[in-house]
Amino acid sequence: MREVFHDTLEDIQGRLAEISELVTEAIEKATAAFASGDVSLAEDVIANDDRIDALVLSTDEIAIETLAMQQPVAQDLRVIVTALRVSASLERMGDLAEHIAQLVRSRYPERAIPKGLKKTFTKMGELDVQVARTLTKLLKTQDLQYATLIRDTDDDIDELHASVYERVLADTFTGEIPHAIDATLASRYHERFADHAVSVAKKVVYLATGDWAGSDDEDSLGA
Amino acid sequence: MREVFHDTLEDIQGRLAEISELVTEAIEKATAAFASGDVSLAEDVIANDDRIDALVLSTDEIAIETLAMQQPVAQDLRVIVTALRVSASLERMGDLAEHIAQLVRSRYPERAIPKGLKKTFTKMGELDVQVARTLTKLLKTQDLQYATLIRDTDDDIDELHASVYERVLADTFTGEIPHAIDATLASRYHERFADHAVSVAKKVVYLATGDWAGSDDEDSLGA
Repeated sequence: MREVFHDTLEDIQGRLAEISELVTEAIEKATAAFASGDVSLAEDVIANDDRIDALVLSTDEIAIETLAMQQPVAQDLRVIVTALRVSASLERMGDLAEHIAQLVRSRYPERAIPKGLKKTFTKMGELDVQVARTLTKLLKTQDLQYATLIRDTDDDIDELHASVYERVLADTFTGEIPHAIDATLASRYHERFADHAVSVAKKVVYLATGDWAGSDDEDSLGA
Repeated sequence: MREVFHDTLEDIQGRLAEISELVTEAIEKATAAFASGDVSLAEDVIANDDRIDALVLSTDEIAIETLAMQQPVAQDLRVIVTALRVSASLERMGDLAEHIAQLVRSRYPERAIPKGLKKTFTKMGELDVQVARTLTKLLKTQDLQYATLIRDTDDDIDELHASVYERVLADTFTGEIPHAIDATLASRYHERFADHAVSVAKKVVYLATGDWAGSDDEDSLGA
């Protein structure tokens, strides 16, 4: 019984890492499309989101079946409940990558990235990709140093997010209203993407350290 | 054993309805504050979000304890897993009401509601309140007609959300960039609030009808 359970847990954790890899691929393509205006790359992200959703759904089904068949208690139970929450966050990260891709598509043939903010969004995109890659490593290894790295990178993203608001609200901003709106939405999507990674990282840390009663996603308004 | 479980289920469902009532109060005050610029009402919403979060956390703990102690299977198991997901959506709805309140606070003493959009946002606010009240009824009675009502109201909110984007992007929009950004963010918060209610309603329907493999939150970009 224990061994069957152990195999199932490994299967679930392997699936979560696999979903995280798909989410990484999505954010890589979405941020590249956002920088270049490449609409076919954006279409790719939008089309692939179904794969993420399907893998999330089948992973949740395995987790629920495990609860029913193996009746885990204590730590084992918390691992399964955490898996259900992690999969929900990963699905949401996939949605946010898709939203960035949808912005690219809706602005085509214009470029979605607003004037004067190219450097900032390039950096935010790189940091989101870094967060996603680190999250995959965390889910594969359960090495908590990756959780710290995710939190630190999220702090940098929050700063960039605040700076976007400051820029579009400043008198010196030369863009029009549509550019300001694109910048606002895109910045929020980038920031929320990393927030969900932090939320997953916290849950993995809680599982490892036993400090379960952690607060959920903290979603600041930004600037 | 069955009876203990039945009592626990009633307790959990009662708690979810109670959280939904707190969320309703939050969105009532947040949308009233948004319309009037009443910053003390906004502060109230921000201060009360901790109560929602605490009630979500204690409800989740009861649900997880029930999984461990009562080892439910089949439908009973799905009820508990659904409760964990419903509580997460309710928490997020509370966060979104708080975001609207934060917008009011950040613009004070100016009014957050952008010029020319007062009617639209008043209507969106009323519909969000209606969605929250209907959700409480659904959670109290499990009467699926309320789920249909929530979906229909959400369609109306989506239309208003799209119309806000159209308005701020139109040449006739007389507001400045800060007003356009406020309108964009506020509209998205109102729309996401209702999306989460739809997500909860779907889960309640799946439980009742046995059609479990439903898609999760569909979060459209709006316009």
